[in-house]
Amino acid sequence: MKAQLGGDEGKHKFVLKTPKGTRDYSPKQMAIRERVFNVIITCFKRHGAEVIDTPVFELKETLTGKYGEDSKLIYDLKDQGGELLSLRYDLTVPFARYLAMNKITNIKRYHIAKDFDIAGQFDPMIPDAECLKIVHEILSDLQLGDFLIKVNDRRILDGMFAVCGVPDSKFRTICSSVDKLDKTPWEEVRSEMVGEKGLSPEAADHIGEYVQLHGGLDLIEGLLQDPKLSQNKLAKEGLGDMKLLFEYLTLFGITGKISFDLSLARGLDYYTGVIFEAVLLQQENDHVEEPVSVGSGAGGGRYDGLVGMFDPKGRKVPCVGVSIGIERIFSILEQRVEASEEKIRTTETQVLVASAQKKLLEERLKLISELWDAGIKAEVLYKKNPKLLNQLQYCEDTGIPLVAIVGEQELKDGVVKLRVVATREEVNVRRESLVEEIRMRTSQP
Amino acid sequence: MKAQLGGDEGKHKFVLKTPKGTRDYSPKQMAIRERVFNVIITCFKRHGAEVIDTPVFELKETLTGKYGEDSKLIYDLKDQGGELLSLRYDLTVPFARYLAMNKITNIKRYHIAKDFDIAGQFDPMIPDAECLKIVHEILSDLQLGDFLIKVNDRRILDGMFAVCGVPDSKFRTICSSVDKLDKTPWEEVRSEMVGEKGLSPEAADHIGEYVQLHGGLDLIEGLLQDPKLSQNKLAKEGLGDMKLLFEYLTLFGITGKISFDLSLARGLDYYTGVIFEAVLLQQENDHVEEPVSVGSGAGGGRYDGLVGMFDPKGRKVPCVGVSIGIERIFSILEQRVEASEEKIRTTETQVLVASAQKKLLEERLKLISELWDAGIKAEVLYKKNPKLLNQLQYCEDTGIPLVAIVGEQELKDGVVKLRVVATREEVNVRRESLVEEIRMRTSQP
Repeated sequence: MKAQLGGDEGKHKFVLKTPKGTRDYSPKQMAIRERVFNVIITCFKRHGAEVIDTPVFELKETLTGKYGEDSKLIYDLKDQGGELLSLRYDLTVPFARYLAMNKITNIKRYHIAKDFDIAGQFDPMIPDAECLKIVHEILSDLQLGDFLIKVNDRRILDGMFAVCGVPDSKFRTICSSVDKLDKTPWEEVRSEMVGEKGLSPEAADHIGEYVQLHGGLDLIEGLLQDPKLSQNKLAKEGLGDMKLLFEYLTLFGITGKISFDLSLARGLDYYTGVIFEAVLLQQENDHVEEPVSVGSGAGGGRYDGLVGMFDPKGRKVPCVGVSIGIERIFSILEQRVEASEEKIRTTETQVLVASAQKKLLEERLKLISELWDAGIKAEVLYKKNPKLLNQLQYCEDTGIPLVAIVGEQELKDGVVKLRVVATREEVNVRRESLVEEIRMRTSQP
Repeated sequence: MKAQLGGDEGKHKFVLKTPKGTRDYSPKQMAIRERVFNVIITCFKRHGAEVIDTPVFELKETLTGKYGEDSKLIYDLKDQGGELLSLRYDLTVPFARYLAMNKITNIKRYHIAKDFDIAGQFDPMIPDAECLKIVHEILSDLQLGDFLIKVNDRRILDGMFAVCGVPDSKFRTICSSVDKLDKTPWEEVRSEMVGEKGLSPEAADHIGEYVQLHGGLDLIEGLLQDPKLSQNKLAKEGLGDMKLLFEYLTLFGITGKISFDLSLARGLDYYTGVIFEAVLLQQENDHVEEPVSVGSGAGGGRYDGLVGMFDPKGRKVPCVGVSIGIERIFSILEQRVEASEEKIRTTETQVLVASAQKKLLEERLKLISELWDAGIKAEVLYKKNPKLLNQLQYCEDTGIPLVAIVGEQELKDGVVKLRVVATREEVNVRRESLVEEIRMRTSQP
């Protein structure tokens, strides 16, 4: 660091950057984020969720052993007076820790505008179906274009591994390999299974046949008749529940965008039942081609064992949850805004308090104070004697729709000149009616 | 850790807790927080602020050397592949880093619903006065009880230290001592100055006379005539600006809650001009005594040098900002809610979709899906055949005002029975009018 600082007359020479893997959000980016969060939180509240929050870091041991092969990505903190801490990696493990710590057996909650979970012992597949309905609502409301929600079940996967001849001890690691199928061709995944993970080529080929399958109720019915799978207790349970899930999704009217897909695995170790992932699709240009995936917009599943890992007596609390892919969604919308040259306002200011003449700072401050106290969103330029042109230009630049202009004559007459920026229309409004007039002219239709 | 795990049949025995200095927020606590955040964000938007966000951690060197004696409290992360990182300690230093990095010279922004800043070269004291107006609005809107906003200026403090005979090199550390006067009696602070920090007893006593002073315009005028202070360039500048500030605060009508207080110092190194702190006051019982401080509800000040510390060419961007004491405010409101036994709703659910008879799960799911799609906040119990009594009890427990009951007869008649939980009134509503009826009955007055 000393070398970096150098001697340039005391001026600092360190690199001005954010840490690797992090970024700042500018006002324009935050305006887009706020739209996204509004849609998501509105949806979570529509489904009756409470909200909780947990610290950004946890005891290291709280996070250890919950994620499987993904856990390399956890940030550790330095020893803090005898406590080993790590930054949270997702919101699911802290949520499970919270439930166990507070002995909560029943809750529907969301967590920082992106994770929604239902915990509790309920009749099968009803909360699971609601999670898929939520994903469907959010992705529709955000108008991101077409999407497909892939669904599978860990029990079906495990049953499939068993009938394909995968040894029990390799279930999780083979599951991790299958998880790569969304980005990697089967041949590569197969050679990882056989080469790196020591699976027999026959077992791998057998898996290869199953993971090509995707469809709806027909496929579920078909697999329930599959001579091998139907003999496996786990797979049979999973397929039975998948059938029930599809019945509920039919009632919700959303099966058109749901695909039961045997290649969906999801990497995290803690899932125990239904798993799902929403793939965002984009039509390539105007060609008559298959839409291509532009990434995952949401994902989740059932994790019935995680809370029990924290409970001193191992008491289980069944949970199912969904996490929204905020960053992916946000970057798609950001690109779209850039491409469309749509003008995004970064403030909600209704009116700029201005003056045409000099020496009216005091009058501007008095008027804006009245407006603020009445709940009007108002700004004033921080200059003693700003030019009217500069004040109007500020409105053009920032999208402020109205200007309230005070001048000697208006003050004498007890009025304020209200100017509509878009039309340049000007009208004198009695001072006591100004708040009402501004509200009327800026109310959302 | 091994010792802690023990052999209790594989059940985990580690301590279930959050890291020292952190806490979880329950749904009830979050409901109170949401109210607080709503008031604060509404105020920031009323004043035309944009919003930005920065990562929770920064390069360690970004934070180093900005806080003075408070910097012991920074959390460091383990080396992350060659990057030394620390958790952010406040939002001001990351904001300054953001301005320098993006070469922004002009912005009014807020940051995670608690920090508001105005950056840019403007006419004196106008943005500073707006910051104080914002503190006044927020503390009034939150209805926290009485408060007092103490104001001072680093230049007045430094001028005072100079005329009292404090050597330049001791300004910052003596300032830290003065900062303790809100919690520590003068005698202790004096002995820290003289004993630990090696200040002469005469200088300390001289400071002791000044720091007792507090008042309004009269005091400012008086000090402008003070034979010693008026000879000091910094103090004179600071007092002149303080006078201007009080003129603007008079226009805003808020001087009743503002006190120019020479004992206010604020510990952080980066302040350069006006500083302020809002003290929340509480009337002790019904006694006719002075109200006592229950802590700081907000604080801030001017920091004109911080952005320049990050700019490779040392270019300065003058800034003034305010940080709201969310945690303090929140714990006061939480205590008050506990004491009043006020019932806080943790969801906004408008209606529970219920049934009185068995085998109606499908009909409940169909109806709730219609309601969700129409934007109604609705819940359903996740049971195939719940008892009506349990469904009504759920509404009582969670404050849901309406129940939409489907039954065989209602389905035949094309109606839904809508029950008002509070009055037990029941009315049949035609299915196509149900959404409108629920909206009408649950709209906020």
